[in-house]
Amino acid sequence: MRDLTPPSDTHAAPAAQTDTVVMKFGGSSVADPDKIRHVARRLVEARERGARVVGTVSAMGHTTDTLLELAASVSPNPHPRELDMLLSTGERIACALVAMAIHDLGHEAVSFTGSQAGIITDPVHTKAKIREITPVRVLDALDRGKIVLVAGFQGFSRDTMDVTTLGRGGTDATAVALAAALGASCEIYSDVPGVFTADPRIVPDARKLPEISYEEMLEMAASGAKVLMLRAVELARGHSVPVHARSTFSDEEGTWVRDTAGMEQPIVSAVTHAEDEILFHLRGVPDRPGAAATIFDAVAAEHVNVDTILQNVVGNAAEVSFSVPEDDVRATRRALERAQETLGAFETEEISDLGKVSIVGAGMRSHPGVAARMFRTLADEGINIRLISTSPIKISCLISRAAVPAAVRALHAAFDLGATDTHRAGDSE
Amino acid sequence: MRDLTPPSDTHAAPAAQTDTVVMKFGGSSVADPDKIRHVARRLVEARERGARVVGTVSAMGHTTDTLLELAASVSPNPHPRELDMLLSTGERIACALVAMAIHDLGHEAVSFTGSQAGIITDPVHTKAKIREITPVRVLDALDRGKIVLVAGFQGFSRDTMDVTTLGRGGTDATAVALAAALGASCEIYSDVPGVFTADPRIVPDARKLPEISYEEMLEMAASGAKVLMLRAVELARGHSVPVHARSTFSDEEGTWVRDTAGMEQPIVSAVTHAEDEILFHLRGVPDRPGAAATIFDAVAAEHVNVDTILQNVVGNAAEVSFSVPEDDVRATRRALERAQETLGAFETEEISDLGKVSIVGAGMRSHPGVAARMFRTLADEGINIRLISTSPIKISCLISRAAVPAAVRALHAAFDLGATDTHRAGDSE
Repeated sequence: MRDLTPPSDTHAAPAAQTDTVVMKFGGSSVADPDKIRHVARRLVEARERGARVVGTVSAMGHTTDTLLELAASVSPNPHPRELDMLLSTGERIACALVAMAIHDLGHEAVSFTGSQAGIITDPVHTKAKIREITPVRVLDALDRGKIVLVAGFQGFSRDTMDVTTLGRGGTDATAVALAAALGASCEIYSDVPGVFTADPRIVPDARKLPEISYEEMLEMAASGAKVLMLRAVELARGHSVPVHARSTFSDEEGTWVRDTAGMEQPIVSAVTHAEDEILFHLRGVPDRPGAAATIFDAVAAEHVNVDTILQNVVGNAAEVSFSVPEDDVRATRRALERAQETLGAFETEEISDLGKVSIVGAGMRSHPGVAARMFRTLADEGINIRLISTSPIKISCLISRAAVPAAVRALHAAFDLGATDTHRAGDSE
Repeated sequence: MRDLTPPSDTHAAPAAQTDTVVMKFGGSSVADPDKIRHVARRLVEARERGARVVGTVSAMGHTTDTLLELAASVSPNPHPRELDMLLSTGERIACALVAMAIHDLGHEAVSFTGSQAGIITDPVHTKAKIREITPVRVLDALDRGKIVLVAGFQGFSRDTMDVTTLGRGGTDATAVALAAALGASCEIYSDVPGVFTADPRIVPDARKLPEISYEEMLEMAASGAKVLMLRAVELARGHSVPVHARSTFSDEEGTWVRDTAGMEQPIVSAVTHAEDEILFHLRGVPDRPGAAATIFDAVAAEHVNVDTILQNVVGNAAEVSFSVPEDDVRATRRALERAQETLGAFETEEISDLGKVSIVGAGMRSHPGVAARMFRTLADEGINIRLISTSPIKISCLISRAAVPAAVRALHAAFDLGATDTHRAGDSE
């Protein structure tokens, strides 16, 4: 039993037993019977190399979307508890099929639901957070030499005894939390071979990074890199679980996400982008203490992650702008309606032709010239910056959606990230 | 907690609380969103009439077949434990959707998996038998006024803590066992409005029976009537649960299956038929004590229900014939191979162009002329009888499959089952 909340650097991580590995495969890796057999072979190969193997898989292909559509066709507003009962079946199906395929390869396997695997969450349906893991049955099966499959994206609440699902990024979170509880390393398999200096579909000379710090990976995930989900990286950092992001379809080394403290810190490690940002622009918000808090409390209550926030005071009213992922637009609208019940009416506008481009690098902290160089690069390309947000190791600019590819390419070149020699990007700064 | 095995007449049934009802809906009743909403309305109507309502549903339409095909496409011989993990998802999906639809009608509902509902089985995967039910969460939810949905066809084994499925007829069995444990009455809804004197598609003047005894229903289910599954009727008889078989799509009264002891016993209540029988004909079986036992032990170990058995001794070897449902042919072949390892080789032949026609009636016990009349009726139609099997209240004849409809019509007329006046069929005997 290991407390998993709140994840924090002060938690001592268990000494990693090199002999246990948690291997996570996403929905596209188990989309059809051939791919399921392929995943089974990868798990068996790890077992045959002597490791104690835990696999966790997402639902096959678009199963979760299909189940959501089914729910929507039955009910305009599906009951959250029942939605979780429904959605949790997708991962169970995939796990059972992978376990069958492993048996055919002559190995013992056993699949567990989230609750059978002891994944205990809070009772927030469709967006539960993992509280702790009591992997009694997992450990027992590993001790018997079995390959264990755990249904991702789900757990159960001890308060209600009900099945919960973890929301977006839930299977990555399952994998990392299991690795923390088992003292295992964690491998996240997907159809990309690792973390790149930029999206290779946009920047042909983008490089795969051999390793990256938790902090940088957090900023990259928050600013659009899809290879690892934010919450999984947070969990990994909190429990010092090394995560290996790699390809389902090759044996090459991917990218290790781990504690790189004491190592040389690159100024800029990568350029990330997102093309699904919606900017909410609010006018006429009363300029009094707590107004912004009321708005963002309401937004947070809908579990929406706001990225960039800007506030201006015009006369005795404020203008507030913030961006959210497209998926969260409906929840954001609900939150704003609720905020207006408290604050009185204000104008809201949604701007949807925007994208975001970001540069991320741990060495940025001590190099103040980086932001200026980013803005100059975008200006040289004739790209207008609509909104800027910064963290100690990241700078994001909201720009026209159409300009995103050109901006990514220009920044990747400006910070010399395509260099193939041994020095890391930005060393010349 | 109520012991559910072995079901037997010696178990005292709990006094039926008229206020609790278990309503079971089959896969065709929940095949699409409209039908799911219809089932939700039926459950809500029962609740609004004041009943405590438990619904149990099968997987939607052909979901179970689709999952079986998926398993077959991944593995030539799916591991039984994992097959159960896979198959049990179908009923969970249907239950969650019905619960959502009930919420939209303004009532509280909660869906439970078999294990959440406390359905404890033996550990035989894919063909588990219910041992007992500890419906703690069901009772608690009923006490709070909720409509409870229980996923049919599944439970869990206390020995292994694994999910099990109940095999064919599993959801009917779930409904009856729940009714027994809750002291409830049981309603089995399907697309036919009750139990008929013969299949109305074959015999246009077939009558719906207002009631029928457990014993007759058992024989009818065993000899081809599809409206209620054999094991559910066995459970109902063992626990004296009255079962109302009725239509999903109308409010008319269906057929009550219950204890009719003391009432007038009709000589013949119904004609049933089956067109999926395969006859295994074995030649050269050593004629020594235990040979037949070895064969039928092996067949029973594969959980195949043999219906009709005939044995002849020819010289110092025996000929054995028996019929099984088409679905069980592969399992029967495996069993016969195993029997030959013990007994030595014998010849086996499979005859697949056969059907079965049966007459069932509790009054038959005291009327010896019934069999002769059946045989004469078939002879008058020019139909050859291949094999005969009898019980005290049933006579079955294996005949050519093509002759089944004519045989059913002739027998229905010969025993005067189409009469619309008040006297029951066969009273004229």
